[in-house]
Amino acid sequence: MLKRTGDSATTQMSRALRGEVTRAMARVAERERLEPETVREEIARGRLVIPANLHHESLDPRGIGVAVTTKIHTNIGGSAGRSGCEEELGKLRLALKLGTDAVMDLSVGDEIGEIRRTLLENCPVPLGTVPIYEAVQRVDRVEDLTADGILEVIEEQAEQGVDFMTVHVGLLRDHVPLAAKRLAGIVSRGGALTAAWMVHHQRENPLYESFDRLLEICRVHDVTLSLGDGLRPGCLADASDAAQFAELDVLGELVFRCRTAEVQVMVEGPGHVPFDQIEMNMKRQQEICDGAPFYILGPIVTDIAPGYDHITSAIGATMGAFHGAAMLCYVTPREHLGLPDAEDVRQGVVAYKIAAHAADVALGRPGARDRDDALSAARAKLDWEGMFKHALDPQRARMMHDESLVNPEDVDADFCSMCGPKHCAVKVSRRAVQGLSDEDGGARQ
Amino acid sequence: MLKRTGDSATTQMSRALRGEVTRAMARVAERERLEPETVREEIARGRLVIPANLHHESLDPRGIGVAVTTKIHTNIGGSAGRSGCEEELGKLRLALKLGTDAVMDLSVGDEIGEIRRTLLENCPVPLGTVPIYEAVQRVDRVEDLTADGILEVIEEQAEQGVDFMTVHVGLLRDHVPLAAKRLAGIVSRGGALTAAWMVHHQRENPLYESFDRLLEICRVHDVTLSLGDGLRPGCLADASDAAQFAELDVLGELVFRCRTAEVQVMVEGPGHVPFDQIEMNMKRQQEICDGAPFYILGPIVTDIAPGYDHITSAIGATMGAFHGAAMLCYVTPREHLGLPDAEDVRQGVVAYKIAAHAADVALGRPGARDRDDALSAARAKLDWEGMFKHALDPQRARMMHDESLVNPEDVDADFCSMCGPKHCAVKVSRRAVQGLSDEDGGARQ
Repeated sequence: MLKRTGDSATTQMSRALRGEVTRAMARVAERERLEPETVREEIARGRLVIPANLHHESLDPRGIGVAVTTKIHTNIGGSAGRSGCEEELGKLRLALKLGTDAVMDLSVGDEIGEIRRTLLENCPVPLGTVPIYEAVQRVDRVEDLTADGILEVIEEQAEQGVDFMTVHVGLLRDHVPLAAKRLAGIVSRGGALTAAWMVHHQRENPLYESFDRLLEICRVHDVTLSLGDGLRPGCLADASDAAQFAELDVLGELVFRCRTAEVQVMVEGPGHVPFDQIEMNMKRQQEICDGAPFYILGPIVTDIAPGYDHITSAIGATMGAFHGAAMLCYVTPREHLGLPDAEDVRQGVVAYKIAAHAADVALGRPGARDRDDALSAARAKLDWEGMFKHALDPQRARMMHDESLVNPEDVDADFCSMCGPKHCAVKVSRRAVQGLSDEDGGARQ
Repeated sequence: MLKRTGDSATTQMSRALRGEVTRAMARVAERERLEPETVREEIARGRLVIPANLHHESLDPRGIGVAVTTKIHTNIGGSAGRSGCEEELGKLRLALKLGTDAVMDLSVGDEIGEIRRTLLENCPVPLGTVPIYEAVQRVDRVEDLTADGILEVIEEQAEQGVDFMTVHVGLLRDHVPLAAKRLAGIVSRGGALTAAWMVHHQRENPLYESFDRLLEICRVHDVTLSLGDGLRPGCLADASDAAQFAELDVLGELVFRCRTAEVQVMVEGPGHVPFDQIEMNMKRQQEICDGAPFYILGPIVTDIAPGYDHITSAIGATMGAFHGAAMLCYVTPREHLGLPDAEDVRQGVVAYKIAAHAADVALGRPGARDRDDALSAARAKLDWEGMFKHALDPQRARMMHDESLVNPEDVDADFCSMCGPKHCAVKVSRRAVQGLSDEDGGARQ
């Protein structure tokens, strides 16, 4: 944990632009085995962000961008009438234990402020929010939202220590008719609220019109903006459509405005995308947003598997990260069906650790494959403890192994229930290779 | 179900080469929405197989090849001291219900013949085996295996009705030293047994030397050969190495020998492969094996997730199918840890249905996306019954939805526990679009 209370009140980006390597940059460089100067350059260039609100005391900084390892992100938070502080704190601790790099509190209930304070106190990774969820709690109807009301929430959350915030600023009034043609319409909650407001008032997106005020709040507290994709496709049929790309063009424009204000920024992406369109989507974002870190939700590669969307989306997330996405927002098995419980969080986080790591290995990031090789070396020796030690989820791996044994006393045996003791491939293979050495020896005599 | 007892004793390939459209070909054409003549041509060309043993009475034929939809495959079977007929039959029924296109009985216990007979009687999809597992049961030591002994098992299984058999014929004596250099050695059980035999006897692969006798048995009963990859990599570090590709070259040679004998053939592939090497692996196989259907195991894209290898491998399987693999052999969460139970079979089959379907959608196979669109249309209407109906696993989706509800009486409500009743994105979005029409109406007045 780094204390940053002595820092002057300016953003990582502004300090990078002035040539300063902050403690947060040094920490990220150490973590990523990079030169501190490289981290500074990437931040100055806008290709790397370190979401690190000046008031988030418990933070141990992480970097998000193409120059560093792929990050994953966990959504937690209860909905109205569901879940409390203790339950959300339990999910946070589980996600941290399994290696999440960031979390977002998506609570929409009455306890929203209290839950966020508790999470922030216990959160060494960047914590994000979607402020419009709290803003809409404070009014009777969506239509009663105002720019001032939303900015008030944003400022309060910034003062509280929130590291990054999703704002749906790129969804403009002209885009709504494009979304009306869709099979699934607008599936982003923030996007839907914004669209409903604009249609009702026949006015432009209030945050778009107040964007400079928003930037000023972010600059003062070093809040990283996460430009939400309110028009992300909610099914394969809507992927890569006019609505999605019209909003992306605006996001590209907003990236430049953030950079001018020296506010750190990342861009959110889909959603539901057929496997063959993922590469194109990643490249288009990188081009339009000039390399700003891309933070994608999945994408889900088929709509037909509710109950298994951690898998449909981990497939898309791997492909996305392989083609340049910097952070992967997890999806749990309960996506589209209900709020995740602790087991769903476990399945979602591990699926995304897999996607991020598989992409890092595929991209040849330095040292990425070391852990695979360590686990495989243990496997080749039938060293179960070694395998568990290097596993993403040692507890689950051990449980599955132990409960499969015919005889519980075989728990440390050099075989498992797959082949049984007689024809274990590993042991037969080892014997063959041993025989080979004997054969060589024989030939030499 | 098609009765094929009146057919003359010759293979689908030989009949295709003679211009005949068999009932099996017609059935596959119907299933795949193809012209029967296209199916015949693909079989004659060797790019499509219909594993359909003349004695498998309960079979409803399926085709495997690039011209048809991606198929998935389920391994079942107990190991020594584990599992019996009833349990395996339960797994078979579950896999069929979830939509598996083929199964393989990998039993290695004493009840092996009895289990296979029971499975065959209840199996409308092609059933495969690895005959060396039974052959090695009949001898005291691996070294006591003989070509005659293995061929005897193969002939008995062919007479019993087994549709396809994995044989490790491409692993030659010269390849064993290449595998000795590996981190994980030989991880295919059949490959390890064959290597041990060759090293002990200092002789060539017995099935390679008796390949013509093997082909004759297959020709008589129309057994499809599945050329096993005894040297498939067992970890990322061993992927795409000299051992793997030396064996692949021999498999390519054997494909041509099968075709000359008019025996249907497919080729098995890896295994553990980093995500970036999958495309190359698929293309290399297609070139060397002249388009013979490629039947891959995963591949797993990272070694660090025991307990979640249905996910690590579904990622690789999607990429593999997208680049030309014809059938995907499922991997369950318990891979590397123990024998799968019924829940593992469920997770594995669904993960692979996802991979196959995602690839079919990405490849633009006709009608592939229809089910996605149907489910998404139901989702946009908050029609839960419609969503469950089109889901890959309706039972699991319904269970997850229902158990997430705060009030059980909300089971048919037009919202779920994700957003709760107040700010459901779907409903807000619908209202926005409705408002848009009103606005248009207003403008026209």
